[in-house]
Amino acid sequence: MPKIVQCVPNFSEGRDSTKIERIIDAFRGKAGVKLLDYSSDKDHNRTVVTLVGEPQAVKQAVVAAVGVAKAEIDMTQHEGQHPRMGAVDVVPFIPIKEMTIEECVDLAKETASEMQAQHGVPSFLYEKAASAPHRQNLAKLRKGQFEGMFEKVKQADWLLDYGTDCHPTYGVTAVGARMPLVAFNVLLDTSNLEIANKIARNVRHLNGGLRYVKGIGIDMPERKITQVSMNMTDYTKTPLYRAFELIKVEARRYGVNVIGSEVIGLVPMEAMIQTAEWYLGVEDFSIEQVLEKRMME
Amino acid sequence: MPKIVQCVPNFSEGRDSTKIERIIDAFRGKAGVKLLDYSSDKDHNRTVVTLVGEPQAVKQAVVAAVGVAKAEIDMTQHEGQHPRMGAVDVVPFIPIKEMTIEECVDLAKETASEMQAQHGVPSFLYEKAASAPHRQNLAKLRKGQFEGMFEKVKQADWLLDYGTDCHPTYGVTAVGARMPLVAFNVLLDTSNLEIANKIARNVRHLNGGLRYVKGIGIDMPERKITQVSMNMTDYTKTPLYRAFELIKVEARRYGVNVIGSEVIGLVPMEAMIQTAEWYLGVEDFSIEQVLEKRMME
Repeated sequence: MPKIVQCVPNFSEGRDSTKIERIIDAFRGKAGVKLLDYSSDKDHNRTVVTLVGEPQAVKQAVVAAVGVAKAEIDMTQHEGQHPRMGAVDVVPFIPIKEMTIEECVDLAKETASEMQAQHGVPSFLYEKAASAPHRQNLAKLRKGQFEGMFEKVKQADWLLDYGTDCHPTYGVTAVGARMPLVAFNVLLDTSNLEIANKIARNVRHLNGGLRYVKGIGIDMPERKITQVSMNMTDYTKTPLYRAFELIKVEARRYGVNVIGSEVIGLVPMEAMIQTAEWYLGVEDFSIEQVLEKRMME
Repeated sequence: MPKIVQCVPNFSEGRDSTKIERIIDAFRGKAGVKLLDYSSDKDHNRTVVTLVGEPQAVKQAVVAAVGVAKAEIDMTQHEGQHPRMGAVDVVPFIPIKEMTIEECVDLAKETASEMQAQHGVPSFLYEKAASAPHRQNLAKLRKGQFEGMFEKVKQADWLLDYGTDCHPTYGVTAVGARMPLVAFNVLLDTSNLEIANKIARNVRHLNGGLRYVKGIGIDMPERKITQVSMNMTDYTKTPLYRAFELIKVEARRYGVNVIGSEVIGLVPMEAMIQTAEWYLGVEDFSIEQVLEKRMME
């Protein structure tokens, strides 16, 4: 059975379609690499790419794309709403099939090493690949962004894992490993953003909620409602139904009802199936009973 | 994108492992054919095989297995609890990917034709492939079983679709096309089989219930409970959650509760995902958001 890894590199270019296509071309027609999706956001000035495939083939395609991005993107000219520190901003590897998170950590390190060797670009390792606990969190690593990175990487706590200086036009990339992430939003029948934020705080890990949930309240003014917008950071340990049902419970004290949900972008089959399994109370169910799972083996 | 068909041939041998292995060997190591599962039941004296693959490759493997079964199985010596009329008893084709039910009907006809041409064995067409409405139902076709088939196929209503006589040692096969079937049982906290049967009647198509549900009450004496045992004959039109929730409703009038469920054997990914989608009230969800679905394209 072949190992399958997912990689979701983020590029700091979301407006110039010629440049975007040159970057995406690095992922096309490569044996062992499947380009599942890419989407560009003009406000963020950023393109998010989703790849799956054989680990070494994915690594090589990413390293090639880093070379293209280095040539195409000048970070001294970049502006956009999304925080960023490099032309290739983040490169997370995610285990999909027959792979452990540890193997993804190794792949992240090999990739960062190749990026430096072939293109002379520097990297931090982050999340599960981080070289110290205070360097796991991407937001903390990226704080100061491209403009602040030249000074930041000279501080003892923030020395680069690969390279010694922030590259003058490319910046710095964060390369790491993490579990599949599910973007899951639960809709509330209140327009009161304060209530949505309170509920988000009650269910998220940071404030005493579920371990693998990050969440904030978000306004949806066109529908006069709000939502609890979540990142499910490990659905194998905190399933979608648990967050959904807990939000219903927390909403009760405000007289607010859950009216639906959204799943944004790609979701692993198992995240949905474990949820069906729970609602139906299926006894002794195995993911091996799923026809498509068996077909992929 | 390649077409994928599923085929679930049933063989009238469930005891002699040497014979069973010779039959199963016809499905092994064939390009374009994946043997997903096979299981033999000694009481039924029957082996159920599950294959998926490219339509022509699956057809050829089935025709080869028919030749082996014809040589290995003598129906004049066969006894078992499950009704049967042929050494290969039924051959249903099921659309899985990029295939319509009509294409499965054509494949069923080609297969039955090849079975006759290569091995001289006769067939009925059944379900969606049936040559007349009264010949759709397998139980009706098979009534009289192997022993009664020699006379039955001489009646105007029951003439064979391929061949003219019941084969003296092989019997007759039913070859057909149907939608994927999900075996779904809902467990009740009553030991009263009469109540389970009443609920089954209320939810099944036959008596005024859901269109794509067949169901009966089944006793589970070791747990002192009962179940509504269902065949979901088209989950795309009658989803699992609808049957589950309707059984809860019907159970209320008997003061009975639903305590869980069972999914027996293989289940298509979409049958579980559409159920998760309903319970979470996911807005605008598309099966294309499922990572594994995209990987298979």
